[in-house]
Amino acid sequence: MPSWALGIDLGGTNIKIAVVDELKGILFEDTQPTDAAAGPEGVVRQLAFMADAIYQRAAEALDTGFFAGIGLGAPGAVDAEKGTLSYPPNLPGWGRYDLRDQLQMRLEQAHGLRSVVIIENDANAAAYGEAIFGGGNAFRDFMLVTLGTGVGGGIILDRKLYRGPSGTAGEIGFMIIDFEGESVHAGIRGTIEGLIGKERIVELACSPEMGASRSPRLNELCSRDFSHLSPRHLEQAAKEGDAAALRTWERIGAILGVGLANITALMDIRKFVIGGGISAAGELIFKPAMMQLHRSTLPSMHDGLEIVPARLGNKAGIYGAAALCFNAAQSSNRDD
Amino acid sequence: MPSWALGIDLGGTNIKIAVVDELKGILFEDTQPTDAAAGPEGVVRQLAFMADAIYQRAAEALDTGFFAGIGLGAPGAVDAEKGTLSYPPNLPGWGRYDLRDQLQMRLEQAHGLRSVVIIENDANAAAYGEAIFGGGNAFRDFMLVTLGTGVGGGIILDRKLYRGPSGTAGEIGFMIIDFEGESVHAGIRGTIEGLIGKERIVELACSPEMGASRSPRLNELCSRDFSHLSPRHLEQAAKEGDAAALRTWERIGAILGVGLANITALMDIRKFVIGGGISAAGELIFKPAMMQLHRSTLPSMHDGLEIVPARLGNKAGIYGAAALCFNAAQSSNRDD
Repeated sequence: MPSWALGIDLGGTNIKIAVVDELKGILFEDTQPTDAAAGPEGVVRQLAFMADAIYQRAAEALDTGFFAGIGLGAPGAVDAEKGTLSYPPNLPGWGRYDLRDQLQMRLEQAHGLRSVVIIENDANAAAYGEAIFGGGNAFRDFMLVTLGTGVGGGIILDRKLYRGPSGTAGEIGFMIIDFEGESVHAGIRGTIEGLIGKERIVELACSPEMGASRSPRLNELCSRDFSHLSPRHLEQAAKEGDAAALRTWERIGAILGVGLANITALMDIRKFVIGGGISAAGELIFKPAMMQLHRSTLPSMHDGLEIVPARLGNKAGIYGAAALCFNAAQSSNRDD
Repeated sequence: MPSWALGIDLGGTNIKIAVVDELKGILFEDTQPTDAAAGPEGVVRQLAFMADAIYQRAAEALDTGFFAGIGLGAPGAVDAEKGTLSYPPNLPGWGRYDLRDQLQMRLEQAHGLRSVVIIENDANAAAYGEAIFGGGNAFRDFMLVTLGTGVGGGIILDRKLYRGPSGTAGEIGFMIIDFEGESVHAGIRGTIEGLIGKERIVELACSPEMGASRSPRLNELCSRDFSHLSPRHLEQAAKEGDAAALRTWERIGAILGVGLANITALMDIRKFVIGGGISAAGELIFKPAMMQLHRSTLPSMHDGLEIVPARLGNKAGIYGAAALCFNAAQSSNRDD
């Protein structure tokens, strides 16, 4: 019998939760606005309530003997071993908090539900989700790179999550590729996120070099107000053949490709799964990224280079959080 | 009783070999010019001859029951699992060669010596040597960065060598930090090796920005012929307070620091052991590198950052190759 688990994505805006079957994926799910104002204790109450409700619903259809536990992905610094979450962005007033143990206790005391609880950084959970259920499934080693408001990622080595010694690995957004360049982001010069984070993409398009303002189609799409220009407009225009939009995506892809080349040089990772809202532009980014990746690596490193799209969208974190429980359940089975 | 092993460093110019005791380090050693003209079979004959000779000498003093094997570090792409060495630079005509099995066979057939043989890339072997016997001994996770003609490195995670999926990990020299810069090295723009490889250091010093030609002391040291200026001269002048030389080392350190910051962001590695001939400049490089490493990383990544000198010089590879045998011997003991 396949296991099943609960996967939770704790965000500053919403809490998403789902019942995930090891083979069939998400069976049912629920979303609620995060009661962030209630502080950590309030959020734990909310999490326990949501988890118990969806667990009871699942228990009517599934064998509870195969329940593997509850996995939770959260933003910020997670110490997976100690079960703590520190200073999550968008969750004010949390500090460093014993999220795992508090949730586990609340579930048992208020709802009578005894469960393994695993917590993980959300980018890592998403990478693990793509590894088990998504675009990285065919790869033993890969990096998930998410292109969105920020640029982030998670690393899978030998089908396991690589967290790094203190759990902060995978911050490709803070990789520097233009150390004397003009862009400064979060106080650091020339980082990938400072070059192709969501807001920079529109800025880039509007630069004289890319020339969005000279494009009739882009003028039309943003109603001549370039403060309303969005990556979606750039995607649409590029697909219609607009030169300024095409140039912009080529540039974004090339910058991404330089970052990927550095990962290949340093870690010998040659498979990249690209997710996040901006990655909807697909081949507009992937093609120039792949060309640049080849140009920016030694020929001896070209074997096996691949860039593929992520497949789980914003559900990667839920999938991954649940999948971490399957893994833990299997490990403990092996110990028996 | 501590184990002992043979460590070999196979270079294009010399073969260095040593008897390494698990606790006492190198007991005795030998060096011979590599008979590169004899091709792979000839070199294997030479390696087997040297290994047997030093083994016989060791066997008079040590208990052969604690002999752990022969470890060999070689330049180029090593497949440690298959035991092959591919296209080693400075060893013409090798192609892809079954070095491990050939050496093992030759040792047994020509010398009656049965031994485990392990081969490893030389930069990886050096990193492992520093991990077990040298500057990385206190660190669970670190990267060895060697500054020399080239810039290379090896990565230790959880006290084990991180080779990467195809064995090419650790190429910090090919990390790009100035993707639109002027320097192009091995066809790639803006790499660390292209910026601070040995030859670039002198070029950098002579740039108008650094101003070596305006320094009386540097003029004196190279007898007014800047084609004879060496990193050693720059080190000496800087230690005497020469402004151009100091500026040059500061710049080199800062560039190194940017590279280290990228390693911290991506892999969460926060300990760096710096070796190679250029690292003799010591604090002249380490101090600006550390300052830049702080400037180029998020405050949340500053905990535990350290830069320390390597301690084994050009013997790191011999130490590491031998140490890989201790490790293998321990693993097989555990299997018994």
